[in-house]
Amino acid sequence: MRIGAIEAGGTKFVCGIGDERGTIADSISFPTESPETMLGKAIAYFKDKRVEAIGIGAFGPIDLHPESPTFGFVTTTPKSGWRGFDFLGALRSEFPVPFGWDTDVNAAALGEATWGTAKGLNSCLYYTVGTGVGVGVYLEGRLVHGLVHPEGGHVPTRRHPDDDFAGLCPYHADCLEGMASGPAIEARWKAKGQALPSDHPAWEIEAYYLAQAIAGAVLLMSPEKVVLGGGVMQQSRLFPLIRAEVRRNLNGYVVANEILERMDEYIVPPGLGQRAGLCGALALGLAALQGTLRST
Amino acid sequence: MRIGAIEAGGTKFVCGIGDERGTIADSISFPTESPETMLGKAIAYFKDKRVEAIGIGAFGPIDLHPESPTFGFVTTTPKSGWRGFDFLGALRSEFPVPFGWDTDVNAAALGEATWGTAKGLNSCLYYTVGTGVGVGVYLEGRLVHGLVHPEGGHVPTRRHPDDDFAGLCPYHADCLEGMASGPAIEARWKAKGQALPSDHPAWEIEAYYLAQAIAGAVLLMSPEKVVLGGGVMQQSRLFPLIRAEVRRNLNGYVVANEILERMDEYIVPPGLGQRAGLCGALALGLAALQGTLRST
Repeated sequence: MRIGAIEAGGTKFVCGIGDERGTIADSISFPTESPETMLGKAIAYFKDKRVEAIGIGAFGPIDLHPESPTFGFVTTTPKSGWRGFDFLGALRSEFPVPFGWDTDVNAAALGEATWGTAKGLNSCLYYTVGTGVGVGVYLEGRLVHGLVHPEGGHVPTRRHPDDDFAGLCPYHADCLEGMASGPAIEARWKAKGQALPSDHPAWEIEAYYLAQAIAGAVLLMSPEKVVLGGGVMQQSRLFPLIRAEVRRNLNGYVVANEILERMDEYIVPPGLGQRAGLCGALALGLAALQGTLRST
Repeated sequence: MRIGAIEAGGTKFVCGIGDERGTIADSISFPTESPETMLGKAIAYFKDKRVEAIGIGAFGPIDLHPESPTFGFVTTTPKSGWRGFDFLGALRSEFPVPFGWDTDVNAAALGEATWGTAKGLNSCLYYTVGTGVGVGVYLEGRLVHGLVHPEGGHVPTRRHPDDDFAGLCPYHADCLEGMASGPAIEARWKAKGQALPSDHPAWEIEAYYLAQAIAGAVLLMSPEKVVLGGGVMQQSRLFPLIRAEVRRNLNGYVVANEILERMDEYIVPPGLGQRAGLCGALALGLAALQGTLRST
């Protein structure tokens, strides 16, 4: 099979082709500019690739309801030029193949469940922690859409007792994204995360917020795996700190060996590594081709 | 059709029979005692009822995994005598019919989606706020089980600035259940909720905690409807207070008419009223009979 994949992130736009085993044969990356520019690059890239399907994992909010007149559109984003852009429609008119269409984080969750660390499981959450915080939700073998789609980066937080940072979210100030995104780390400590040593107190505070949100999500949805990706998670000390904090938050209440005894295998980096996003889009394309997605 | 239903709550145990339209023809209620006592009462009740299926919505934690050796058991409850009780197995050996088996709150969510206020929708959350706080999760047309099953009553909370109540949860102290259950209201105000007037400050604090948790759940799962039942929700002033607080928490971030314009129809009491629990168990029995549940 030859399946096209588009990872349409807010800062990076990646096009690639791959197959049903999750192998990426070729890919190309661009900085995200106007929708017209990116559309032109995607069309040029896929023009002669003879793909049988295309999967798109896009930054949101996006319209995921097939019966909606704006299905396939980027909706209320503040990102210049993208609001109201008919992303899926523009590509569909160029390529008469099945399309998979979902959020970037839902795509990544599906990719991990198809080929990555959640392979064979019926559920996983995929957190990306970078410029923003997003959560992909895959439960009972399905990506969750619901009313709009999950926006789990914006859940309320309980403040760390030593943290007086106001929070950066323009909607909620000190929600998870407002307190734990890459820009929040930089604003709080006056230095980029990459510049902070692994023993800096920044990481305990970061883990406090992420673990609190993850514990809440584990209680609400009981996922079989929690995958943490994105630039901030490149600080590998975060994983043991987050696991310990999730354990402290749950305090033995959720009785499952995965949590009580095998936390190191429960909260994990993406099995697909840096390719989690693109492979996620590939998984959407594959699912569209196989007819295993309900939408598109 | 004649379908049996068992609402097995921690304090109240209800048996009934009903049909595929959600009509309850007969029911009987007992205080919850030992499993042997309740089993005897259930067997005596259903003995001559000629039911074609039985649905059980049970207090948890319970084992929902058909492949598990303890499938159908009540697992780690502190409730005297119930830990390790093979609830489903004991009934199955008496009645050779299809069984539906899920948590009481998942059952109630399915009931609301089948006949109640979420009829026709693919998703809803069902909160019960009473002796404890529980959350049933129905998403993309399926009840969510995952690793164990949702336990959304225990999510962490952000403390109300005027509230110094320590919280009652033996695991988490000030989680949602620890701060907002009926016993938490009584411990904080030295009076039962029923005795507090509708303009008492207790209700604003109660709404603060519930709304915060609901806002987090709406962000994580994007449900199409949020149903609030249980004894505490009999204080009807809570509904407008909670809706206003959810709106304040979300602050316009989730762009959906259901939230921005029709909140009165989004966060609602059970359409099935006081029968939400028993009708939920009935819906589980109906789904088992129709083969639309994956388990049992």
